[in-house]
Amino acid sequence: MYFHDAETLERSALEKLQAERLKKTIELAANSPYYSEVFKNNKIDPSIIETVDDVKKLPFTTKEDLRSQYPYGLLTQSLDNFVRLHASSGTTGTPTAVFYTQKDLDTWADLMARSMYAVGLRKSDVLQNMSGYGLFTGGLGIHYGSERLGCLTVPAGAGNTKRQIKLIRDFNVTALHIIPSFALYFAAKVRAEGFDPADMPWKIALIGAEPHTEHARKKIEEMLHIKAYNSYGLSEMNGPGVAFECTQQSGMHIWEDSFIAEIIDPETGDPVEDGEIGELVMTTITREGMPIIRYRTRDLTRFIPGQCKCGRTSRRIDRIMGRADDMLILKGVNIYPMQIEKIIMGIPEVGQNYVIELIKEGLVDQIRVKVEIKEEFFVEDMRALQGLQKMIAGKLRDEILVTPRVELVQHNSIPKSEGKAKRVIDLRETED
Amino acid sequence: MYFHDAETLERSALEKLQAERLKKTIELAANSPYYSEVFKNNKIDPSIIETVDDVKKLPFTTKEDLRSQYPYGLLTQSLDNFVRLHASSGTTGTPTAVFYTQKDLDTWADLMARSMYAVGLRKSDVLQNMSGYGLFTGGLGIHYGSERLGCLTVPAGAGNTKRQIKLIRDFNVTALHIIPSFALYFAAKVRAEGFDPADMPWKIALIGAEPHTEHARKKIEEMLHIKAYNSYGLSEMNGPGVAFECTQQSGMHIWEDSFIAEIIDPETGDPVEDGEIGELVMTTITREGMPIIRYRTRDLTRFIPGQCKCGRTSRRIDRIMGRADDMLILKGVNIYPMQIEKIIMGIPEVGQNYVIELIKEGLVDQIRVKVEIKEEFFVEDMRALQGLQKMIAGKLRDEILVTPRVELVQHNSIPKSEGKAKRVIDLRETED
Repeated sequence: MYFHDAETLERSALEKLQAERLKKTIELAANSPYYSEVFKNNKIDPSIIETVDDVKKLPFTTKEDLRSQYPYGLLTQSLDNFVRLHASSGTTGTPTAVFYTQKDLDTWADLMARSMYAVGLRKSDVLQNMSGYGLFTGGLGIHYGSERLGCLTVPAGAGNTKRQIKLIRDFNVTALHIIPSFALYFAAKVRAEGFDPADMPWKIALIGAEPHTEHARKKIEEMLHIKAYNSYGLSEMNGPGVAFECTQQSGMHIWEDSFIAEIIDPETGDPVEDGEIGELVMTTITREGMPIIRYRTRDLTRFIPGQCKCGRTSRRIDRIMGRADDMLILKGVNIYPMQIEKIIMGIPEVGQNYVIELIKEGLVDQIRVKVEIKEEFFVEDMRALQGLQKMIAGKLRDEILVTPRVELVQHNSIPKSEGKAKRVIDLRETED
Repeated sequence: MYFHDAETLERSALEKLQAERLKKTIELAANSPYYSEVFKNNKIDPSIIETVDDVKKLPFTTKEDLRSQYPYGLLTQSLDNFVRLHASSGTTGTPTAVFYTQKDLDTWADLMARSMYAVGLRKSDVLQNMSGYGLFTGGLGIHYGSERLGCLTVPAGAGNTKRQIKLIRDFNVTALHIIPSFALYFAAKVRAEGFDPADMPWKIALIGAEPHTEHARKKIEEMLHIKAYNSYGLSEMNGPGVAFECTQQSGMHIWEDSFIAEIIDPETGDPVEDGEIGELVMTTITREGMPIIRYRTRDLTRFIPGQCKCGRTSRRIDRIMGRADDMLILKGVNIYPMQIEKIIMGIPEVGQNYVIELIKEGLVDQIRVKVEIKEEFFVEDMRALQGLQKMIAGKLRDEILVTPRVELVQHNSIPKSEGKAKRVIDLRETED
């Protein structure tokens, strides 16, 4: 049961379609001030594309490029033809803006509808959209997709938990679009209002708006008595609906008939080995108003090898493991803090807090991971602790390919930071 | 230049169309649990409709009826066929909910696009939607209409004035959808940020979300250097886009190919004389999912006699003059506080504040209007004051048909209330 034929295309047919659409995209993009210049400087025209692999011949587009072209530099058509824009807040500099023609909105709504279908939503479902609307693509993106799929859509917006609960009960809401960081708070509020989440009519939660761990998903599923599905999107690629889990919950299917995805080494720009972590690079191939070529998302993930049991032929990406800007290079190896976190948090003896320190040992850079051990495991027995330490170092080496120093510390001995924890501290300048 | 042929239909053709659509609406409505019962009890079927005037044979639908049928009693189709709902907050009792099929959303978007076209918006315009989205019909209503018309739509949402200004400047926003009570605050903020409203790219403001006076409109136009247009809508009739001003700014055209409008005496239910104030009653004739027949809006207005210079043949309503629940009956005459306010505020000597008191003179009910006089006019000369008093009483009598007692009081002598002023005080029980 699929929403669109493209979801199960043979790889060869899919890649042929991608190549055709990429060619077409280059033709279109050449009408924008920015790409017309880039293509001229790099001697690029549609004829250089024969297979989808030829996407590698094209230059990258970065966030900085989008900023420098703000607001209209990437538009392929007269402004008259656009009916929507979404813009970043620009709190950290020049904002970026993405413009949509009516056809682009239709394409996006179709991709969203397809995504929601993949996690089991049907026109008989009632979806409550609990995220904010406005310039954030998540709100209107889900809204249009839900209507396109034919779900009864409740545009609740953010906030007002009490009313959210009333709406859910009154209208037998079967699906929620909810921000993961709000979901646990919401679950507690539902209980506080005297309701058992198990008795609520909901079945499915879309929680893709923020990167989160598998652990967080499990917790949300448990607390809300719901199936929670992750997804991936970014406003530069429309918004939500770029990649979506299916009911298998084993990675997010990229809608490859609309996007070409690559994963590269953020330092060299070269493709990583299949299954290796790297920076996701995306190219739109069905957008007409503002195509973007080889966009450096800065998001870290990997292709999940093999085929999904659901029968869809599109490649899957793993959950986002951080930002390329967080990458550390040690002994020539790329290391991402999230890799370390994943291992550490999977060890039962480890408590809530840890910190990664970059240090110098003589002339050589080294990583030191300080790990809080739960009270009950922090025993006097030196040998037991040494064993634990060795085990952690070994597991980390298997993941990141270098052996870090591991230091076990007592519960609550690492300072807690307000808000987002600072997990990586560079001590290479201050230590000798 | 009109958006749709229906706007300039000959009255006879328009009324024929209305009658046909009303017939069809009765057929459809009979599929809902509520109307099937109502029609059976009142022996109503489509055959009783020959002309649009036969709408009077149908029973009214009240807010209380909608509440008693909450949530699904008025739906003509299976819930599967609906893709959107809007609901009132229900802070003062059971909420009401309105459900839309995809076709209903399309019809609504077309009506909104037509409305925006009537005030001069074209696809080359850039509209910033500064109202909240979510369950409030104003946000998504304007949004869908703007996209339908082909305007570049900036879904800014409410709040964050600084960012609103940046978006307006960055994207050359030519039209604002802004809540009237926010517009003056916004104008002040624009100045505080160092910008002259006269230099801003905007030309047109849609300010219909709240009833407001002509004085408020003028003030908004002056402060923002903008043309501001009023409109009328309510969620029971989709939301915004029921009646809209044209560039003449002389009343709001009802889109009579989609709605049948009547104005009745809220006490008797009988039609008022043409041009008289009464309660607006509306019937949907293009809605399929949830038709509503002879809905008692409780909103007070009047039909504006004559034809509009714009060439549209649809009847116009005056701005909303209050709620039917505010109506006073004195010596058999219906009196609306807004009528009194309109007269009083048009007199130069009158200050900011006034109050209407219901009193008993012997056995007879009487109205006493206490009016604050500006300091410079509150002179010692008794005769001058008596003249003013007489003049005000005379003007009021011409408007409300009974002569009220008028009492002139000094500036600042009427207690100011926080928030919405309580303008009518019933003293009939306490005074002898």
